[in-house]
Amino acid sequence: MTSTDDSSTGDTGLLAPVRAGSAAETATGDRAVLQAMLDAEAALTRAQAAVGLAPARAGRTVTAAAGADRFDVRSIALRARAGGNPVIPLVADLTRAVAELEPQDAEFVHRGATSQDIVDTALMLVAARVLDLITADLERTADALGTLAAAHRDTPMPGRTLTQHAVPSTFGLKAAGWRALVLDAHERLSRVRASLPAQLGGAAGTLAAFHAYAAEPGHGADLGLDLSAAYARELGLTKPELPWHVLRTPVADLGGALALCAGALGKIAADVLVLSRTEIGEVTEGSGGGSSAMPHKSNPVRATLIASAARQIPALAAVLFGSLAAEDERPAGAWHAEWQPLREALRLTGGAATAAAELSAGLAVHPHRMRANLDLTGGLMLTERLNAHLAPLLGREVAKQLLAKASRRAVEEGIDLTRAIAEALESSTEPTEDRLRELVERLPALTDPADYLGSAAALTDRALQRHPHPRQDHR
Amino acid sequence: MTSTDDSSTGDTGLLAPVRAGSAAETATGDRAVLQAMLDAEAALTRAQAAVGLAPARAGRTVTAAAGADRFDVRSIALRARAGGNPVIPLVADLTRAVAELEPQDAEFVHRGATSQDIVDTALMLVAARVLDLITADLERTADALGTLAAAHRDTPMPGRTLTQHAVPSTFGLKAAGWRALVLDAHERLSRVRASLPAQLGGAAGTLAAFHAYAAEPGHGADLGLDLSAAYARELGLTKPELPWHVLRTPVADLGGALALCAGALGKIAADVLVLSRTEIGEVTEGSGGGSSAMPHKSNPVRATLIASAARQIPALAAVLFGSLAAEDERPAGAWHAEWQPLREALRLTGGAATAAAELSAGLAVHPHRMRANLDLTGGLMLTERLNAHLAPLLGREVAKQLLAKASRRAVEEGIDLTRAIAEALESSTEPTEDRLRELVERLPALTDPADYLGSAAALTDRALQRHPHPRQDHR
Amino acid sequence: MTSTDDSSTGDTGLLAPVRAGSAAETATGDRAVLQAMLDAEAALTRAQAAVGLAPARAGRTVTAAAGADRFDVRSIALRARAGGNPVIPLVADLTRAVAELEPQDAEFVHRGATSQDIVDTALMLVAARVLDLITADLERTADALGTLAAAHRDTPMPGRTLTQHAVPSTFGLKAAGWRALVLDAHERLSRVRASLPAQLGGAAGTLAAFHAYAAEPGHGADLGLDLSAAYARELGLTKPELPWHVLRTPVADLGGALALCAGALGKIAADVLVLSRTEIGEVTEGSGGGSSAMPHKSNPVRATLIASAARQIPALAAVLFGSLAAEDERPAGAWHAEWQPLREALRLTGGAATAAAELSAGLAVHPHRMRANLDLTGGLMLTERLNAHLAPLLGREVAKQLLAKASRRAVEEGIDLTRAIAEALESSTEPTEDRLRELVERLPALTDPADYLGSAAALTDRALQRHPHPRQDHR
Amino acid sequence: MTSTDDSSTGDTGLLAPVRAGSAAETATGDRAVLQAMLDAEAALTRAQAAVGLAPARAGRTVTAAAGADRFDVRSIALRARAGGNPVIPLVADLTRAVAELEPQDAEFVHRGATSQDIVDTALMLVAARVLDLITADLERTADALGTLAAAHRDTPMPGRTLTQHAVPSTFGLKAAGWRALVLDAHERLSRVRASLPAQLGGAAGTLAAFHAYAAEPGHGADLGLDLSAAYARELGLTKPELPWHVLRTPVADLGGALALCAGALGKIAADVLVLSRTEIGEVTEGSGGGSSAMPHKSNPVRATLIASAARQIPALAAVLFGSLAAEDERPAGAWHAEWQPLREALRLTGGAATAAAELSAGLAVHPHRMRANLDLTGGLMLTERLNAHLAPLLGREVAKQLLAKASRRAVEEGIDLTRAIAEALESSTEPTEDRLRELVERLPALTDPADYLGSAAALTDRALQRHPHPRQDHR
Repeated sequence: MTSTDDSSTGDTGLLAPVRAGSAAETATGDRAVLQAMLDAEAALTRAQAAVGLAPARAGRTVTAAAGADRFDVRSIALRARAGGNPVIPLVADLTRAVAELEPQDAEFVHRGATSQDIVDTALMLVAARVLDLITADLERTADALGTLAAAHRDTPMPGRTLTQHAVPSTFGLKAAGWRALVLDAHERLSRVRASLPAQLGGAAGTLAAFHAYAAEPGHGADLGLDLSAAYARELGLTKPELPWHVLRTPVADLGGALALCAGALGKIAADVLVLSRTEIGEVTEGSGGGSSAMPHKSNPVRATLIASAARQIPALAAVLFGSLAAEDERPAGAWHAEWQPLREALRLTGGAATAAAELSAGLAVHPHRMRANLDLTGGLMLTERLNAHLAPLLGREVAKQLLAKASRRAVEEGIDLTRAIAEALESSTEPTEDRLRELVERLPALTDPADYLGSAAALTDRALQRHPHPRQDHR
Repeated sequence: MTSTDDSSTGDTGLLAPVRAGSAAETATGDRAVLQAMLDAEAALTRAQAAVGLAPARAGRTVTAAAGADRFDVRSIALRARAGGNPVIPLVADLTRAVAELEPQDAEFVHRGATSQDIVDTALMLVAARVLDLITADLERTADALGTLAAAHRDTPMPGRTLTQHAVPSTFGLKAAGWRALVLDAHERLSRVRASLPAQLGGAAGTLAAFHAYAAEPGHGADLGLDLSAAYARELGLTKPELPWHVLRTPVADLGGALALCAGALGKIAADVLVLSRTEIGEVTEGSGGGSSAMPHKSNPVRATLIASAARQIPALAAVLFGSLAAEDERPAGAWHAEWQPLREALRLTGGAATAAAELSAGLAVHPHRMRANLDLTGGLMLTERLNAHLAPLLGREVAKQLLAKASRRAVEEGIDLTRAIAEALESSTEPTEDRLRELVERLPALTDPADYLGSAAALTDRALQRHPHPRQDHR
Repeated sequence: MTSTDDSSTGDTGLLAPVRAGSAAETATGDRAVLQAMLDAEAALTRAQAAVGLAPARAGRTVTAAAGADRFDVRSIALRARAGGNPVIPLVADLTRAVAELEPQDAEFVHRGATSQDIVDTALMLVAARVLDLITADLERTADALGTLAAAHRDTPMPGRTLTQHAVPSTFGLKAAGWRALVLDAHERLSRVRASLPAQLGGAAGTLAAFHAYAAEPGHGADLGLDLSAAYARELGLTKPELPWHVLRTPVADLGGALALCAGALGKIAADVLVLSRTEIGEVTEGSGGGSSAMPHKSNPVRATLIASAARQIPALAAVLFGSLAAEDERPAGAWHAEWQPLREALRLTGGAATAAAELSAGLAVHPHRMRANLDLTGGLMLTERLNAHLAPLLGREVAKQLLAKASRRAVEEGIDLTRAIAEALESSTEPTEDRLRELVERLPALTDPADYLGSAAALTDRALQRHPHPRQDHR
Repeated sequence: MTSTDDSSTGDTGLLAPVRAGSAAETATGDRAVLQAMLDAEAALTRAQAAVGLAPARAGRTVTAAAGADRFDVRSIALRARAGGNPVIPLVADLTRAVAELEPQDAEFVHRGATSQDIVDTALMLVAARVLDLITADLERTADALGTLAAAHRDTPMPGRTLTQHAVPSTFGLKAAGWRALVLDAHERLSRVRASLPAQLGGAAGTLAAFHAYAAEPGHGADLGLDLSAAYARELGLTKPELPWHVLRTPVADLGGALALCAGALGKIAADVLVLSRTEIGEVTEGSGGGSSAMPHKSNPVRATLIASAARQIPALAAVLFGSLAAEDERPAGAWHAEWQPLREALRLTGGAATAAAELSAGLAVHPHRMRANLDLTGGLMLTERLNAHLAPLLGREVAKQLLAKASRRAVEEGIDLTRAIAEALESSTEPTEDRLRELVERLPALTDPADYLGSAAALTDRALQRHPHPRQDHR
């Protein structure tokens, strides 16, 4: 079909590198949405055929006509403004396309349905396809992170809190934590994926028009319920308990799960951005990004792009949650406000998941830089441990004050913490008894960061035993 | 304890009537949070006793000292500013309180823990208590709505889309839809409730200090893991897979479930607000709210307050989702930014749930007003049905145009739709054949709204079969 | 240039009818953004020529080469993923295009600049163009609303609070209020428009590279400042006080002004949606939207689409405000997170403004429906006034209670309020003195809603004296 | 008055250390809000006296009775739930208090007003007081930052982009940028402060009740307008063009300006958090915060708390912007949803501003660490400059590739960049001509970071010439 597409208006990803070129972008593009709407229309006619509301031939004809290539997306988009949704012009075009193939089937196009049945179902189909892409990327990410965690189970690095070195930790524990978040996201997205429902309610959710078109009103069970079940079957979506035109749990659930996923990936990105700082240098992205100005730059680009997505998705989810409070049998605005934010959340999360899979697979870890950073503060990170040893001897408060003072002196005078402590103990009025002297001798050992890792390895081991449930075959 | 409480600074609910005086407000107030922090401290010492890190007596002493009444909340709040969190001054005060009871137990207060262990655990305890309140209110709401839905299973009312009458529906189906949303919220909150975890990681998530305090390093299983399990048991919370200082799934899950719940209740409120409009009058709140100016007013106050909560919570949830992307082993800001929004989301949703239970229990439904409104447009709402009957006789396009034209004439000239259709058919060039004449005779019956309800009753019946899973006894 | 554009990925407005086909959509499309980036590059070379850093010929060549038609937007979008922004591939393509025209000018392309200089400047150019469109639409809207307000200066209608009839008001006052909001939005957008700055800072905001390329370091004033001023002049944008790579006031100001504008239009939409409800019918959109199912429907589509935009823009603005807290000289994520939300906010507001201009121009007002609705409650809306008359005679509390009771009786028994009051006064134990009897006689006059309009006309008159400042010619 | 205050429900700052104990907290507490509501009531009676609607004595009596100490805030909060706002119980209590002083003045309490007149006016009074606090803190902050910028005008430090060293910059330029943002915030808040309006509209915005209470209807000018002006004068607020019950520009403007301010301070915090990282150490907060676990910790607590506020306020502003789209003459929910978010945004921003003033005043800057960090990459940060020198000799592409390759080698082999370049030039097939040889000799000078600062000093000087407009005396 000749296109009125005026590329001057399009959004082809120029301002969204996190998803430009990703499979999620293709799966959420206008053409994919159009195809999903056509899929919904075709499934509806086939379902009507299945319950005796239309001839089987009509189902086949509409299905044959329902290829997005035959339609002009931009023209449909433009004509959508008049009625406020794209299904009105789409039905006109599809009816014409069906009539060209088989005139007598034209009347079965969209019969009994409302625009929202088609838009909602199409967005669920799009969501299903994107969630499958995302969970696959999350599995790849979890695999790579699992490998990193196992490899670095015992690699010490500084634990950092409020930007400051705290106590030693391991890179294994960090990677295991990232992986746990990825599995959390996988679990929530899989749960939502498994329950994405078809939408069928007719004009105001009673399915009345289908009854009107039925030759004979009587029917063992309820015709509307039967039709609705057949429709969901045709689409590979879940049969809804009720038409959900204004019961927007499925959309809100999507918003919540996508926001959690984006945040989980955002955590990995946040850490990579810190750890790859020039002064820290503990990890680097496999292949960094260049700069238009500076030849030497190797930027953590994937982490940056993931971070850019993680900043946008909570706001999009908030719009979706806000649309739950929808008045009437179809709200004037709340429903329309969902479409673009839902698509945007899907493709941003999809792009971020792909970037995360790449980032995890290519991440270079630098244990020597971790060690160098651990040594930067000369044992300061072990004050907690020293406190555990000193408190029983000196009393809790005295021990804490002595350590704080010695720490300050170590930083200000640039001397070794162990020396500062030893001197502080000597000059203290307390009689330096045997156990204290013994402790002073053990100070070098006690301030070895690699020897103060607590349960890091045990926690890592336990976390790595968790696995994603294999994705089910959804259709 | 003498209080420095300066009531000039407090927030006692003056600007939040939706939760003022609610049980959720009490359960989330500063005193309740303080008590939960003390509960966490006491549980930690008891857990250490359970795994041999402290004498059993210490567990008892700390527990005895850990009554919020002994502490000055405001003073702790003020002193929190220096270190950025309330646990630092709380530990000082608790240590003193324990020392007063039993000096030698003072050293076991907070031993090995970090501030975040206490704040996070306390907020989970608070969340647990509030979620129990909310799910109970949701059960009450669902019960009342179920009763309404059954009672009005066959009460016709206008279905409205984009603010306009669409096709008839029933109040039973509307109430069943509200109930379905309430059960969705119940399900999601119950799921989150069942998995609220204790938090224990120590300074940077390795549990290292507990190892340092252990007399003998060796130990069959991992000491940190054992302690963490014992701590969760003491608290009645779930044992976490990993310390979740920076793996914020529990907080994000809470945000998502609360936003869904607020939106579900917001949907009910949105409908009540429309249906109780002066011109519509199909429902009224049991006892409306007064006005400071107008003696006649009876406002839908509970719906208004629920709506006010539903507008705030998505934004609060967005803050919580945004905090997932937290750098390091404890972030500088993202964690601190969660506290108040989480508390606010809990108490607003709690207040809204109580208001919803009241609203549902007291809602007056006016079938005669529904009927009057159905009759307002003289059959216009049945054009969809008439179309189903006319299309086979006239062809789809001709039928639709004839109906649109007759509808316009009916509205503009204030005449009956059936008359407008009959005249349009007569004046049409089409030979008015027998089947059309027969149809004209059936027009009055075909435009009876009570006879065009489709699957409304069947859908209502099916939806009412769903029940909330009984709440488990969580402790 | 041959296009790699794969329309399957594009967003051509299918899910955003509020802006599909609008001028704002074209002005914010990827092609327009690309052209704006090219405009920025060309202006930079010309500015360098102006301050002696490049030959004048280079300015002309780059300008000649900088037509978006020569470039493949989708290809640039795809290649942007590697470095995280579209300028890196754009500079490569532009350099090639310039070299084709004049090889020796290729080296002057983008010389000394950083990617952010180009992206930020381009988005300000795009914003400038869209704000001009929006303010023009707001002027049209304000004109139409001014006409409506003047025409209906004395048309009484029910004032409604918390969904209930309160006291009478006028449609003139309502339209004057809408207009005041539109002028508020105009004022704020114009203020932001007038200060949109060019961006030039070089790699990290010091403009150092331009100094490096300067033949002779000495120079009277500062070369960087001179260049920056020349660049802003070439672009018709404001000269910034400082490079604002990480001083994001311009973007945050845009977010705030767009959110205010969307909300202002959203207020009009919210009212139109209420007033055009089937039961209320006080206004109708000039030409309503159709339905895919119901021939009789005439939906308030423009109001619906405006409402859909008003629900999205606050969340987008929140992302922009959130990006203010950007670390370093260029943040890793916060900047990238601005691009799409800013574009989306611009085009949604632009589409909404166009819809508002159409809506205001075509709005049909129905005074007879307003009057019918005023009469619906038989004087109940005048209880406030009756209270003013009764309180001095009966005392404040007694008067209020008598009126509340009479109001309830009027509603419940369907009798006239004046009768209910008269009977209440008679049966009251108070001796019905002369002044009360006199008042009873005046009750019909006192309950005429058209006679209780307070300052509505005076307020309307005053508000209509305000006018938008004429837009300046910006270039 | 005996208090029903049940401290178990209160929020006294325990979960919000950023504002606990701040002046903004006191100025926004329930008691301050209550006092502001009482101030509004008293001003209203005095204004009525001024225009002849009440005796002067009544104005004095109400003013005398309107001390918050006489009222029980918690009781009012609890009773607010029934009608949905606190003014209804407040008016009851105030009427009683006035009657105790002077029975005949009781009838003049709140006469003709609506609850929203009082709540809105009170929140504007509260906002005025808090904005004065904030702008004063911003002035202190700007002063301190100006001093820092001047002192470090020529202190070189690494410019960082996407977390990586980019090119050198100065701490002076950074501090000047922070200051520019603070002045931007000051300007926007001052603008909003200067236009905060009183609210007076009566039941539905027509001021009709005041006319009803007027003895004689005639009156030269409009009574409502006169009263409204007198009321604003009494309050020291701006006279509104129209009652703004549903024209929420003032609240949205507050939201936008507070979000900008919080973001501006958030930028400073974000930089301080990066620069005070253990590995970077270029700045430290004057007195860092302690830890409950680690004696050595000195955390950047003020920056952390500011960051926590900056994360919350955009979401709160989004709620306020969302409330613009308010239906009718008073919306059912949108208005009520503003109260708590507005208060929260005011007190969080206020607390953050105080923290920023402290942070700026006490910030320790460490030029030696900046220099050490500059030297960390051995000239890599100067590749942009080297490119400017090499490109003319080698051609743009060859130069860029040679520098990228030499940079990689310098990093990987840990050798000096100048050596890597020299060797690359020698081994290149290009004849190493004289100018290249000369360049090699200049390499050490060309890679001195202190010599590549571009316009940093000139920009700093210019930025420091800007000053905040002195605050006007507002009352």
